[in-house]
Amino acid sequence: MRKFASGGLRSLLIHSFQQKHILRPHHPSSSLSSSLPRFLSSSTPVLDFTPPSTSSMADPSASKLPVTLQNINPKILKCEYAVRGEIVTLAQRLQEELLANPGSHPFDEILYCNIGNPQSLGQHPITFFREVLALCDHPSILDKSETQGLFSADAIERAWQILDQIPGRATGAYSHSQGIKGLRDTIAAGIEARDGYPADPNDIFLTDGASPAVHMMMQLLISSEQDGILCPIPQYPLYSASIALHGGTLVPYFLDEASGWGLETSELKKQLEDARSKGINPRALVVINPGNPTGQVLAEDNQRQIVEFCKQEGLVLLADEVYQENVYVPDKEFHSFKKVSRSMGYGEKDISLVSFQSVSKGYYGECGKRGGYMEVTGISPDVREQIYKVASVNLCSNISGQILASLVMSPPKVGDESYELYCAEKDGILSSLARRAKTLEDALNNLEGVTCNRAEGAMYLFPRINLPQKAIKAAEAANTAPDAFYCRRLLNATGIVVVPGSGFGQVPGTWHFRCTILPQEDKIPAIVTRLTDFHKSFMDEFRD
Amino acid sequence: MRKFASGGLRSLLIHSFQQKHILRPHHPSSSLSSSLPRFLSSSTPVLDFTPPSTSSMADPSASKLPVTLQNINPKILKCEYAVRGEIVTLAQRLQEELLANPGSHPFDEILYCNIGNPQSLGQHPITFFREVLALCDHPSILDKSETQGLFSADAIERAWQILDQIPGRATGAYSHSQGIKGLRDTIAAGIEARDGYPADPNDIFLTDGASPAVHMMMQLLISSEQDGILCPIPQYPLYSASIALHGGTLVPYFLDEASGWGLETSELKKQLEDARSKGINPRALVVINPGNPTGQVLAEDNQRQIVEFCKQEGLVLLADEVYQENVYVPDKEFHSFKKVSRSMGYGEKDISLVSFQSVSKGYYGECGKRGGYMEVTGISPDVREQIYKVASVNLCSNISGQILASLVMSPPKVGDESYELYCAEKDGILSSLARRAKTLEDALNNLEGVTCNRAEGAMYLFPRINLPQKAIKAAEAANTAPDAFYCRRLLNATGIVVVPGSGFGQVPGTWHFRCTILPQEDKIPAIVTRLTDFHKSFMDEFRD
Repeated sequence: MRKFASGGLRSLLIHSFQQKHILRPHHPSSSLSSSLPRFLSSSTPVLDFTPPSTSSMADPSASKLPVTLQNINPKILKCEYAVRGEIVTLAQRLQEELLANPGSHPFDEILYCNIGNPQSLGQHPITFFREVLALCDHPSILDKSETQGLFSADAIERAWQILDQIPGRATGAYSHSQGIKGLRDTIAAGIEARDGYPADPNDIFLTDGASPAVHMMMQLLISSEQDGILCPIPQYPLYSASIALHGGTLVPYFLDEASGWGLETSELKKQLEDARSKGINPRALVVINPGNPTGQVLAEDNQRQIVEFCKQEGLVLLADEVYQENVYVPDKEFHSFKKVSRSMGYGEKDISLVSFQSVSKGYYGECGKRGGYMEVTGISPDVREQIYKVASVNLCSNISGQILASLVMSPPKVGDESYELYCAEKDGILSSLARRAKTLEDALNNLEGVTCNRAEGAMYLFPRINLPQKAIKAAEAANTAPDAFYCRRLLNATGIVVVPGSGFGQVPGTWHFRCTILPQEDKIPAIVTRLTDFHKSFMDEFRD
Repeated sequence: MRKFASGGLRSLLIHSFQQKHILRPHHPSSSLSSSLPRFLSSSTPVLDFTPPSTSSMADPSASKLPVTLQNINPKILKCEYAVRGEIVTLAQRLQEELLANPGSHPFDEILYCNIGNPQSLGQHPITFFREVLALCDHPSILDKSETQGLFSADAIERAWQILDQIPGRATGAYSHSQGIKGLRDTIAAGIEARDGYPADPNDIFLTDGASPAVHMMMQLLISSEQDGILCPIPQYPLYSASIALHGGTLVPYFLDEASGWGLETSELKKQLEDARSKGINPRALVVINPGNPTGQVLAEDNQRQIVEFCKQEGLVLLADEVYQENVYVPDKEFHSFKKVSRSMGYGEKDISLVSFQSVSKGYYGECGKRGGYMEVTGISPDVREQIYKVASVNLCSNISGQILASLVMSPPKVGDESYELYCAEKDGILSSLARRAKTLEDALNNLEGVTCNRAEGAMYLFPRINLPQKAIKAAEAANTAPDAFYCRRLLNATGIVVVPGSGFGQVPGTWHFRCTILPQEDKIPAIVTRLTDFHKSFMDEFRD
């Protein structure tokens, strides 16, 4: 897969310096072992974008105010979240300019391919889910005759079931801090049906999306910079951000781009030992499956090796499984780590495993509802009590998100009035996503100097771009990372927003970007044309 | 107000020890200055309840698992949240026993007076708010004819307005990380109408209830245990919990129970100087107005003194104003700190002020929706960018909560179809709360050895109980704080759940509990009777 040598790019990172709390990784190309993945070197000048417009408004007299960049929590300064970073700020500015002055740019609209936010790009919600939510929000219409004409019979029935599970039918009350018990029962039953192994509703913590659940685990496991969390490179920047905010050390392990973003336990072992030799105590291993930003789906055999590795090394396995419904290729299938570990004979006493799920992804894409859960297994009751205590400080997650999480894990079944429509909506979305992934993947692989692994799952492509030296020099002159330079050029020329690979981490000297597969299908041909035309002219301008 | 000397109780706390990260306070009774408010001494044996039942299930073989109480983040162990603490765990167990075995206890139901959760106790949601939420959840019914029969015309119109403010009308998409711009415009307009001073939508951060907003500010301001946050004693334990989780130091200042929980700036000054003399750098002052758990409403003049104090001392004023709609007495009125500071001529450049608001309180009581916002003023643009970055790591707050926050700040107006019903619902709830507060206050003041300040606002009473020596000895023998001992006895005898004062902090040697005024009005007489009977028999058992 690696068509292009990246050696010439290495000099750019020679002045990267090691941040105190982030471990210098070994990576596949050993001659590069003294430089850092770019996303880890947030303080290097090459990442300094022009500050967003608000900064330039800073009034000198503001210095009388007690809070300054110099006296806030330095962990916040260290934290980065590229998915909503500078490139998005620029996109928002362009959008405002387009609105105020149509025709001011060579495109009519901004296409946000920076973030897995399907409904913002026109994906429709699943009708059944929204019917149930609306009825639970306003239960007093449930027994009105007009309601029969507006809502499906099974949505009405499901709303009644859910209301009966809520003490006093009070959808406006704080719930148990882990979430409404009846909804956790439903979710546990859904997990059992998926895996073929028992699930305990008391292991479920419902959360406002998966992100707060990840933070909660990081908060639990990280006491100081000596505590390490093994994360894939490239990774979803929630992990690097959360580790930075909690003051721990990100211990990187590299996915192998050449083998379709393969995850080798030999690489895990090497990085683990390297970390330990530096006095870091790795506490957990993060695995994102299907992968974000890489889109790979792990083979079951590989998962078994990972489980065995965690068990042997005493690591908590943090399994980000929010894309479990997003698999697009016939030769791959999603298997939860819970199922895999149970199939190996490992139970509650053998392996500590936390699985994250969200209503934001899958075919539902209900990002704005902020629903999700974590299933916490192999954690002793006294530690789980501490997790409960932290959850209780925020009282509970939002009830609509809780309800939606239960619906996602227990959708309409054969014979239900909504079943046919539900299947049509679900299959329509998933098969379209598969076609979009393939079309974009092919288009990217047709570009000069670009290679792109297939998106087996999730919502992203992560192509590698072999940038000409002249482009790299131009980026250097503009005080910008080369991949960020490319992405800004792409945005300015086409209105397409993608995220530079440096936001996710990449082998030093290689450059990538992440692009979602989420624009509606009728827009894909135009995107391919715009991207292809842009890339050609970019290469024409900078070809060595 | 202080009918009883508390000197005899002091010896109990003599063995309290100072926790490293919590400042030993000066408090009004100077001879007690070497002991701590109880809530600050979480590690003292007197607070050790019998562990909840899950603990007793802990299997010895669980020790093979990698995560133990010994190797998790010690800040989590330090954190306490009494509102959902051991007493609630006990209540849940009793509730299960009642369900499994009716008649097993001397009461038929558990009355949760531990938490400001109105709808869990039967309060109905405001119809207009729920209509709009349901329509935004399922917009495809908006133009169906049956909808006209089910929903009010202004709810339909408002839903259209809101949908038009959301890009692509996508209520299932992630929004801007501060919240949907159009909703922030509405909220800013609502603040302007309330205060008579301008509000900027860019200062608004919509959050999942007020709690995450408080955490965000603590995360920003606390870098180490040297950073102090001035908090009232008694306080709402979100503050002590959040400060503990972020590793800062709680600098207590005492509200004066004798003057109706008065807030004296001389006390603020004394505690501030004491903290500074110990090497603590106080960064912010928390004021809860109307007060939680105390129920007092600050006089405008007092607020001016507080603003002046913060300005002079370079403190961020963190104004918890979530009870702004809950004022029950004709001689008091809510004034926002923003209005007060602007009326003093202080603007953006003069005072750093963060105001917290929530959809969980007021007459709406929509706790389960997790909506709220903070208005951040007097914070420089570069620091606000850092707050934005932290918000963006969690993407956005839930959209239903965002919508509800806009509705709360912009309810139906004269002439709207819903206006009359809205007013009737709102006034019905608020006037009933006022009556309940008065009835419970009078009943408490009629108990032997109990004094209770009036609930001018908020949702709580915080009576002081003068416990007999014999009861204190019995608590000591049971390894329990005396107020917790009383509360457990109350629960076991009556099913009424209240929270011991030690969960909020109190002058050492004094004992209190917090009781909400939220049970439905028809239940209040029975509660008064049960409480009165219990208290009499408790005193009969333990009277010295």
